[in-house]
Amino acid sequence: MSLDRLIKRIDKLKNPSVVGLDPKLEYVPSFIRDKYFTELGHTLDAAAAILLDFNKALIDALYDIVPAIKPQAAYYEMYGWQGIKALSETIRYAKKKGMYVMTDGKRNDIGATMTAYAAAHLGKTDVDGIELEAFNADALTVNGYLGTDGIQPLLEICEKYDKGIFVLVKTSNPSSGELQDKQIAGKPVYEIMGNMCEAWGSRQIGAYGYSAVGAVVGATYPEQLKELRQKLPHTMFLVPGYGAQGGGAKGIAGAFDKKGRGAIVNSSRAVMCAWKKEDNCPETEFAQAARREAIRMRDDITAYLH
Amino acid sequence: MSLDRLIKRIDKLKNPSVVGLDPKLEYVPSFIRDKYFTELGHTLDAAAAILLDFNKALIDALYDIVPAIKPQAAYYEMYGWQGIKALSETIRYAKKKGMYVMTDGKRNDIGATMTAYAAAHLGKTDVDGIELEAFNADALTVNGYLGTDGIQPLLEICEKYDKGIFVLVKTSNPSSGELQDKQIAGKPVYEIMGNMCEAWGSRQIGAYGYSAVGAVVGATYPEQLKELRQKLPHTMFLVPGYGAQGGGAKGIAGAFDKKGRGAIVNSSRAVMCAWKKEDNCPETEFAQAARREAIRMRDDITAYLH
Repeated sequence: MSLDRLIKRIDKLKNPSVVGLDPKLEYVPSFIRDKYFTELGHTLDAAAAILLDFNKALIDALYDIVPAIKPQAAYYEMYGWQGIKALSETIRYAKKKGMYVMTDGKRNDIGATMTAYAAAHLGKTDVDGIELEAFNADALTVNGYLGTDGIQPLLEICEKYDKGIFVLVKTSNPSSGELQDKQIAGKPVYEIMGNMCEAWGSRQIGAYGYSAVGAVVGATYPEQLKELRQKLPHTMFLVPGYGAQGGGAKGIAGAFDKKGRGAIVNSSRAVMCAWKKEDNCPETEFAQAARREAIRMRDDITAYLH
Repeated sequence: MSLDRLIKRIDKLKNPSVVGLDPKLEYVPSFIRDKYFTELGHTLDAAAAILLDFNKALIDALYDIVPAIKPQAAYYEMYGWQGIKALSETIRYAKKKGMYVMTDGKRNDIGATMTAYAAAHLGKTDVDGIELEAFNADALTVNGYLGTDGIQPLLEICEKYDKGIFVLVKTSNPSSGELQDKQIAGKPVYEIMGNMCEAWGSRQIGAYGYSAVGAVVGATYPEQLKELRQKLPHTMFLVPGYGAQGGGAKGIAGAFDKKGRGAIVNSSRAVMCAWKKEDNCPETEFAQAARREAIRMRDDITAYLH
């Protein structure tokens, strides 16, 4: 229907940021790792159990100050189906705590197959007449290279279950310009993709003026952020690349509208690994360190907003 | 390193086709479905068990005549982590039978995250110093919208473990042209993406002249297939859209080089559901019907090759 559920939570917590849960084993304190490696050996089962414990502790420490989490599917797939089970349980746990869950999967395919992805991540799966939830996140990142018929099945699921999608427009990585900055009839590819987002979302615009179709625009490209904010008035931005990738809060300010809405900024590693960067932080306090970094990030970003 | 392992298998079986394992529950005969629904109820566990049984029977019936399978990740994700476990076991089973496995995931992300996807699907995952296999397919489909640094981690894994990738160039769906046909400095986007495939693969060219980096080009666009075959001499094509989506064998012939190499054509539904289309085929003979359709497809495609 729209991204209003997310926007309401951002407004309530006065925090337009999302914590990326992209856990690597090396981010996890040794007391958690040792426990499961001793119990289960050096297995994918142990790795998945470690990630899930780590995630749950982070969610417990963040849910009342951070509106959303963004688990990155790759970091779970890396640990096989066991990792994906941990992803599934992470999503369920965060939702139970009231968080908005944005699965970062950048999924894309032709219509019939996209219908399966939409059911998997946002909707329900028909099992011989019984509808079951597979992952049931609130939003999913997607790649629009295949055009409208790869997006249409998602729009239907967004409308039916009040979910959202974020389409890759201008990504945060150094080589994003190889295709995305190229000009097509005087417009860069990212703007054309942005215009498609506006069109795809045009029938599902919520109370705040933003549709169910958001865009991914990297914090590392502040000029494009500002330009796209002007050109895509109904498209909310998911902004990765803050912190570790080099995007600063000042540059990000251009992603927001005059009311301080219209964007949500992601940080992953800086929050997950905050305990490693703080002076003399005992590893048992990793979750509190994550909370402190999340607060610092919130204050850093909101300082530049109206 | 290259796609030589795949090409050798195609040459040996004289069959440049791949069967897409994109199973939906309704494709599976009722004697298999009933067994697991009775045993496990209408659950994702039952669904996953059904798909795995179905896949294994198809693999048993196909492995000596079809060189490769292409499981589509979406149809497994739809059944949650249980479905992903079935995917993992399908891959292992097919490889044990000697088949080349191409996971159709269309994955894409920035470099650091693509490293995780590369480990997940083609390489190995480091678990505290121990290297474990997560999915371990032979090849993966990927989306190049993010440019070179989203592809580089895959190239390293391809080199290290003798694996391959297929990058989306011109997809088979009706709206693929919305972005892919747009002109950039006189060239369509799909050609620019194709040229990137040539560049990405240039350091890993095998004995047959094809690199580790293939391209996905839909059977539904025969003119582009022919054009791209000329322009991308080191890029092997994975050709979806034969049969159900409307691409015919005659049009597909342009995807092949003069030696009859350079492409592999996918069919999913027509093979999986062959038992439903044959007159009076008892459902217990679904795998034999799939074999008959796979042979028909092989002969249909090779009839147009030199």
